[in-house]
Amino acid sequence: METFPNPNPERDYHIHITSPEFTCLCPKTGQPDFAEIKLDYIPGHLCVELKSLKLYYWSFRSEGHFHEQVTNMIASDLIGLLNPHYLKIAAIFNVRGGIYTTVVVEHAGEK
Amino acid sequence: METFPNPNPERDYHIHITSPEFTCLCPKTGQPDFAEIKLDYIPGHLCVELKSLKLYYWSFRSEGHFHEQVTNMIASDLIGLLNPHYLKIAAIFNVRGGIYTTVVVEHAGEK
Amino acid sequence: METFPNPNPERDYHIHITSPEFTCLCPKTGQPDFAEIKLDYIPGHLCVELKSLKLYYWSFRSEGHFHEQVTNMIASDLIGLLNPHYLKIAAIFNVRGGIYTTVVVEHAGEK
Amino acid sequence: METFPNPNPERDYHIHITSPEFTCLCPKTGQPDFAEIKLDYIPGHLCVELKSLKLYYWSFRSEGHFHEQVTNMIASDLIGLLNPHYLKIAAIFNVRGGIYTTVVVEHAGEK
Amino acid sequence: METFPNPNPERDYHIHITSPEFTCLCPKTGQPDFAEIKLDYIPGHLCVELKSLKLYYWSFRSEGHFHEQVTNMIASDLIGLLNPHYLKIAAIFNVRGGIYTTVVVEHAGEK
Amino acid sequence: METFPNPNPERDYHIHITSPEFTCLCPKTGQPDFAEIKLDYIPGHLCVELKSLKLYYWSFRSEGHFHEQVTNMIASDLIGLLNPHYLKIAAIFNVRGGIYTTVVVEHAGEK
Amino acid sequence: METFPNPNPERDYHIHITSPEFTCLCPKTGQPDFAEIKLDYIPGHLCVELKSLKLYYWSFRSEGHFHEQVTNMIASDLIGLLNPHYLKIAAIFNVRGGIYTTVVVEHAGEK
Amino acid sequence: METFPNPNPERDYHIHITSPEFTCLCPKTGQPDFAEIKLDYIPGHLCVELKSLKLYYWSFRSEGHFHEQVTNMIASDLIGLLNPHYLKIAAIFNVRGGIYTTVVVEHAGEK
Amino acid sequence: METFPNPNPERDYHIHITSPEFTCLCPKTGQPDFAEIKLDYIPGHLCVELKSLKLYYWSFRSEGHFHEQVTNMIASDLIGLLNPHYLKIAAIFNVRGGIYTTVVVEHAGEK
Amino acid sequence: METFPNPNPERDYHIHITSPEFTCLCPKTGQPDFAEIKLDYIPGHLCVELKSLKLYYWSFRSEGHFHEQVTNMIASDLIGLLNPHYLKIAAIFNVRGGIYTTVVVEHAGEK
Repeated sequence: METFPNPNPERDYHIHITSPEFTCLCPKTGQPDFAEIKLDYIPGHLCVELKSLKLYYWSFRSEGHFHEQVTNMIASDLIGLLNPHYLKIAAIFNVRGGIYTTVVVEHAGEK
Repeated sequence: METFPNPNPERDYHIHITSPEFTCLCPKTGQPDFAEIKLDYIPGHLCVELKSLKLYYWSFRSEGHFHEQVTNMIASDLIGLLNPHYLKIAAIFNVRGGIYTTVVVEHAGEK
Repeated sequence: METFPNPNPERDYHIHITSPEFTCLCPKTGQPDFAEIKLDYIPGHLCVELKSLKLYYWSFRSEGHFHEQVTNMIASDLIGLLNPHYLKIAAIFNVRGGIYTTVVVEHAGEK
Repeated sequence: METFPNPNPERDYHIHITSPEFTCLCPKTGQPDFAEIKLDYIPGHLCVELKSLKLYYWSFRSEGHFHEQVTNMIASDLIGLLNPHYLKIAAIFNVRGGIYTTVVVEHAGEK
Repeated sequence: METFPNPNPERDYHIHITSPEFTCLCPKTGQPDFAEIKLDYIPGHLCVELKSLKLYYWSFRSEGHFHEQVTNMIASDLIGLLNPHYLKIAAIFNVRGGIYTTVVVEHAGEK
Repeated sequence: METFPNPNPERDYHIHITSPEFTCLCPKTGQPDFAEIKLDYIPGHLCVELKSLKLYYWSFRSEGHFHEQVTNMIASDLIGLLNPHYLKIAAIFNVRGGIYTTVVVEHAGEK
Repeated sequence: METFPNPNPERDYHIHITSPEFTCLCPKTGQPDFAEIKLDYIPGHLCVELKSLKLYYWSFRSEGHFHEQVTNMIASDLIGLLNPHYLKIAAIFNVRGGIYTTVVVEHAGEK
Repeated sequence: METFPNPNPERDYHIHITSPEFTCLCPKTGQPDFAEIKLDYIPGHLCVELKSLKLYYWSFRSEGHFHEQVTNMIASDLIGLLNPHYLKIAAIFNVRGGIYTTVVVEHAGEK
Repeated sequence: METFPNPNPERDYHIHITSPEFTCLCPKTGQPDFAEIKLDYIPGHLCVELKSLKLYYWSFRSEGHFHEQVTNMIASDLIGLLNPHYLKIAAIFNVRGGIYTTVVVEHAGEK
Repeated sequence: METFPNPNPERDYHIHITSPEFTCLCPKTGQPDFAEIKLDYIPGHLCVELKSLKLYYWSFRSEGHFHEQVTNMIASDLIGLLNPHYLKIAAIFNVRGGIYTTVVVEHAGEK
């Protein structure tokens, strides 16, 4: 992923980025999984560039991942990249076996 | 129910699992009851495996239970199994006699 | 199922009866299936009694049936019982494997 | 019910009157039933006065009636009163025993 | 009301104009009535100018009118003004006495 | 109203009971009023039995009551009966005179 | 506006009154403005009588007022009349010039 | 606009293309207008290329057009370009002066 | 895809199958496209087996296809396989470049 | 932008102004961007005049701006103009590349 400098680092503000088209594979069965990924963060010195974020999400298309693990992985990657003042990732997975699963990771950074 | 190790035990995060297809029997009349079960928990060292949770919910299909009792029973079973940092169960029952009933149990675990 | 005489047989009118709580079993896997059954009919000389219709729907709870077959079976049973001037059954099944299935049977009776 | 002369009898037009607050009693159990009554008609020489229609609907509050019968009775009363060019009554009853019932009577008058 | 020449008189097309802010007075009680007026017409040689239509609707603000009458009056005024190929007026009045009333006038012009 | 012992008195949990079919009479005009009653409580040693609660609500059908008064009366009756750890009643009345009224009573009991 | 004594002055509870039919005039252009007025208050010793509140709202029909000013005026009138323990007024104005405006005044009274 | 050959010219089928981001200027006041353009057509030998359609819509951004005229202009341009078996354009304009306007042009081509 | 014999070939009835998780690649840019595929058909002697239909849809995951072409291809494959009395395919693609595209193919078979 | 004196400076209250018709250009590609701008502020001694705010928003129509930057710029301009007790700007941008972006700036002023 690429970054660009936060145009207003002296002010805390939120950036919400929602991607309804996330898809990866189930590591047990190989069947496709679909999710909406909601990102909410307060930038520190860096913002994530939108197109590179989209490509990063697309990179999961042919990989196998469990729900809990992939959500934490995305959170960790973005925290490592951006060192944000705050970050939340919610991965809302499509129904499987009559059951709807959502995983939510919240992170409070330092200022 | 089966469990698997929490892939990120060092971080508190939420797992939401919604099952709109819960059904049991009324202990007084033997008539079927229907509910949506919403589970929200912060895992400790263990996560509940989705398929076994589904089978656990299905096991109520031919049993008679009162609304308040079955919701507390599910909460207690999951708390005993997972020892979570936090857990909430909401059982949203279908209308009966023109009346809609929902039972909500919340549990704050230890860290 | 029980019937009662149509209180206005000299006039064609519609009776809509929706049951969101239909459940049976998958004949292949034994797993529960859930559906909403929508009935719309113009009575001839007979109307179906509501409570007995409910018990008839409940009788599928422990039986295995394919979607297409169970919908046609319900239609045929009601047509045989009521000899209606018109009848439509729509069975709207819950999502399975990411796929939503609805089966609709329509019948034009004689006057 | 009272009527007033149709202000535009030379033109066919529709009057829709929806009353979400209809209630009567179940003739078998004495329990209250609730319904929304939707009336749609093309007036002939007469229109129904709104306040008297409301009082007419209220007159069912303490009476016992089956769904099919009460809907046909309201239709017949309004057809007898108004001799309309067209009339439709839909009675949308609240859920009972997990089942939703709607009765619809349609009438094509003479011009 | 003012008009302007239909820019495409050789082609039949629809113009829909919805005004949710119509208000007049009840001729019996003097209380304010509120309605949404939906106009749909196929212009002949003339279109109605929007601002003058708005002023025409506003002119009812301090006048007393019955529902059926005011809807027919608006229809007749617009038919006289525009001589349209088709015109429909629906006046959807706010709830009064627990009852919702809508009056719909449809007119097929000559070509 | 009847009660039954709370099956889990050692744990604070919520019971939500919604009744969309409450009706009483206006004490000034005698006209019917309609409301949805939402009850939310944390039981102490007692829970209210659903069927008796329904009959209690029905007992208002032929009585005249003001909005503010009847909501407080229901709250007081349930507090006196159940001695709950927490209770909230919201009575959402149907529109009258173009105005929507809701009355909400909240009560924090002792533990 | 008229008042009546609070039937339960020993208990703090909320009364919500929503009026979707408020209309006044723009003081600059004379054009009609439309708004929904939401009132929420905790009564002290007095409640506002509904019909007189409606007449009070109607009294603005032919007056010119700015959005911010009329909302504060209504709040001040009701605070002066009722001396409530709490009061909130939200005036949600209809779109003008592609812009939606809402003004919200909140007041914490003394107990 | 660019075109590409219809991949299935032997079969009549519909292509729906919705663009919620159309904007032009009011020719009288110079103020921006916003609309959603819905296109539905059955292709003959040619389909419109999506990106060039988007650029065509964007070309109106700094031009002044009346609602009725611009909708007919878009219809005529697409009919001239594609010679379709069927075409419908609906332009749903944003509210102006409290009034919502939609213009709908329908065209039946030759086969 | 696999088929199974229609359990009621003597009666015309509809089977609706909706798959919100279709994804393929853009043949020009290689970027992923997402669509919901709605199938509605009246079976002749054969029905399509659900699981094999799902696998058929999944087979497009790594292939490049234009919107118009892939929808016609799915329709042709299903018509060839099933020889149905009626079939309709609607492919509702996710927004691209601010534009929403849906392709609908309808087929009337022989009886 | 123009201002006018706050008519009630002695009381803290909220003014919400929503503009669904904001459009500017992408500084990289020159393509149009669309957003809804939601403003919520507690005025100090000054309020922003609506028409001038609209013209201010329109002034971005032919300018290129990044999402994060334009939202902060609007916030800074309004804070400098109004010196409000509180201000929040949310810019909800239309989907681009399958991704929805919202930027939210919050400001707590001095009293």
